[in-house]
Amino acid sequence: VRTTKVEIITIGDELLLGFTIDTNGAHLARELAAAGIEVARRVTVRDDGEAIAGAVREALDRTGAVITTGGLGPTSDDHSKAAVAVVFGRDMRLDEEHLAWMEARWQARFKRPLPASNRAQAILPEGARKLTNNHGSAPGVWMEDDRGRWVAMLPGVPREMRGMLADTLMPLLRGRSGDSVVQSRTLRTTGVAESLLADWIDAMEGGFPGLDLAYLPGVDGVDLRLTARGLGATAADEALDQAARRLKERIGVAVYGEGDADLAAVVLDMCRHADLRLALGESCTGGLVGGRLTAIPGSSDVVVGGVIAYDDDVKVTLLGVDPADVAAHGAVSEPVVRQMAAGARSVTGAHVGLAVTGIAGPTGGTPEKPVGTVWIAADVEGAIRSVGLRLWGDRDEIRRRSAQAVLDLARRVLLARQTEQSSNSAAEASRA
Amino acid sequence: VRTTKVEIITIGDELLLGFTIDTNGAHLARELAAAGIEVARRVTVRDDGEAIAGAVREALDRTGAVITTGGLGPTSDDHSKAAVAVVFGRDMRLDEEHLAWMEARWQARFKRPLPASNRAQAILPEGARKLTNNHGSAPGVWMEDDRGRWVAMLPGVPREMRGMLADTLMPLLRGRSGDSVVQSRTLRTTGVAESLLADWIDAMEGGFPGLDLAYLPGVDGVDLRLTARGLGATAADEALDQAARRLKERIGVAVYGEGDADLAAVVLDMCRHADLRLALGESCTGGLVGGRLTAIPGSSDVVVGGVIAYDDDVKVTLLGVDPADVAAHGAVSEPVVRQMAAGARSVTGAHVGLAVTGIAGPTGGTPEKPVGTVWIAADVEGAIRSVGLRLWGDRDEIRRRSAQAVLDLARRVLLARQTEQSSNSAAEASRA
Repeated sequence: VRTTKVEIITIGDELLLGFTIDTNGAHLARELAAAGIEVARRVTVRDDGEAIAGAVREALDRTGAVITTGGLGPTSDDHSKAAVAVVFGRDMRLDEEHLAWMEARWQARFKRPLPASNRAQAILPEGARKLTNNHGSAPGVWMEDDRGRWVAMLPGVPREMRGMLADTLMPLLRGRSGDSVVQSRTLRTTGVAESLLADWIDAMEGGFPGLDLAYLPGVDGVDLRLTARGLGATAADEALDQAARRLKERIGVAVYGEGDADLAAVVLDMCRHADLRLALGESCTGGLVGGRLTAIPGSSDVVVGGVIAYDDDVKVTLLGVDPADVAAHGAVSEPVVRQMAAGARSVTGAHVGLAVTGIAGPTGGTPEKPVGTVWIAADVEGAIRSVGLRLWGDRDEIRRRSAQAVLDLARRVLLARQTEQSSNSAAEASRA
Repeated sequence: VRTTKVEIITIGDELLLGFTIDTNGAHLARELAAAGIEVARRVTVRDDGEAIAGAVREALDRTGAVITTGGLGPTSDDHSKAAVAVVFGRDMRLDEEHLAWMEARWQARFKRPLPASNRAQAILPEGARKLTNNHGSAPGVWMEDDRGRWVAMLPGVPREMRGMLADTLMPLLRGRSGDSVVQSRTLRTTGVAESLLADWIDAMEGGFPGLDLAYLPGVDGVDLRLTARGLGATAADEALDQAARRLKERIGVAVYGEGDADLAAVVLDMCRHADLRLALGESCTGGLVGGRLTAIPGSSDVVVGGVIAYDDDVKVTLLGVDPADVAAHGAVSEPVVRQMAAGARSVTGAHVGLAVTGIAGPTGGTPEKPVGTVWIAADVEGAIRSVGLRLWGDRDEIRRRSAQAVLDLARRVLLARQTEQSSNSAAEASRA
């Protein structure tokens, strides 16, 4: 049976009750969509045998293809495998081979015998196929009936779930899709409105024959997803390559990456390659830009830190902003943001200084400077660029859009610097 | 029909595909649970008439009570109301009264006639009851059949959904639950492990007769939710009051708030009442503490800002940490974190300085200082307290736990200061 549609069932009491946000379901949906597999429905149920069996049975009847997450751990709360065995009319049995592997692993790693509670992880439905878990001890489970209807059970721990999806399940699903190869590519853009992107793209001659193009807007910008269906692997690759190249030519610098690229990581990489260290001067974002950059492992070789200059006095005393400019132009102004960027750089000894100052709301706006007025600046070794923005959304959105905007300004300035340097060295080379 | 169980259906293509995280579903689930209404299942479907009708029909058959979010807007993508009309076998008709209200509102606000596309918002299933929307123009819809099975349709915009839930739907549901009053109260704790809390609470004599107690652990701590069922309104109130009071006595200072209290807001309020301004020195959290504090509207009257001291040089140059201490004890050490807190305070002129330094991983750990080793400190007008922690989880969790821990340290120090000052003034009063 070809797999073109699946349902996702996420299992857990805390998920159902809203105390944990369902990032697993969202990640699975994005990855499947990127492989051209349509997610027909997502369901969340509590970790209870009857609830799980009911949801799996209904999903199998509707769609015939189900991915579950959660309920594979060793605790007594976990009922997923037994529930799915009931749905398929199978017994549970101990997988001796997996038990031996777990015992050996436990002995090697913890120097003591496997706890009894962990033995339950080696009890699987009869006829189940194990899905390798390179990131934990609970194996995933694949069950299929003679009509080709299937359930894949993944762990609930996000790191293990993501690893097993990438290592094991996606290759298996791609194999099942047979001739009908579905491939996709996503270009991430920021700083250009969806309607303007659409105008640019609609004006492209010839369109994208054989491909679907979807616009996916979010706080960080607009993603463009190209999908090829039923073209055959080589033709799909070629069509996507060509379309991505044409889109990048048309849209230019607004494309900052592909797939699930994070703009903060892109900026870190550009700095790392150019041997530049980076510092921040944050007002309305209050630490969000620093938080995003330092969320990335290894960021310490680029990020030196910076100043959260929330109060105007801090802008003056720690970043060296001229108080006369604050008085004359206000804290949300071009002269102030430029001095903040220069100050972030000079007080920390970094090469690059990024700064943000704005009115995030809900109060503090005026007719001249309404909520959403934001100034951003980037100082790269003394060359400063600044941009004024009018952002929309609530306080949280304005702050997040501001953080994305200043990271994007850094990227654009660094890109221009790269281009300039490589044309200079090309000119030198031709003179040599 | 009493309402004790509901299903939630969230509607939207971007939700289903994982490009938008389903915060509406989580919010609804938490609010309903707090009112003692059990969420039996959560489902996400695309914004498509057939998919919506199918999901609503199945949920009505299973549970008889359904809340949907999304699909009430004016765009042609929205099919929710028509789909639910089909399920109930009703026609759609124009609600003249609502149309007149919308036309008047539009004219008053925008000085021009209502766009044709907005007329669709006034087309409702026959027999539908409107749910007032004080936060937007699309009304909610309540449909009920002669067996008492019902569907409540709320907008998808989170602000509008939350407002309508609080203003209109929750009172309606509470009314339906009749005699069988279900009430709950949640105490938020942090800094104490779930198992230790359980030991303390299990040792309390008499238990909590007539109440359920649930432990809800998360990155920010453990919430304790007390639920009273079937006691009658006055008795439930009294039982919850008494139980909450006894729990607070037993657990003491680890309780930082009730309901959905945010520890950052608690710290801001304490500072505001004591006329104290606050500054930060953040290393491993890289701006997260500042980000949390400044996420709260009006934080600027307390937060002055601070220093993101990611690099050791920045700890020395901007926060005044003694480089000899960094060399002797390492950047993740008690002497360094104390100087960071003092420095944050002194360089900004704030009264309170908070500092964090730690090893968030995945690399950088050593046998003596493994990943998860974190030092935090709070300096309140020169009196410094510091605490060493061993936190678990991945990089993101360690950073978030660190931010929560330093906010909690601030709260405890400010609380002790309050108590001391009030006992001092009591002593003065008795001497007078």
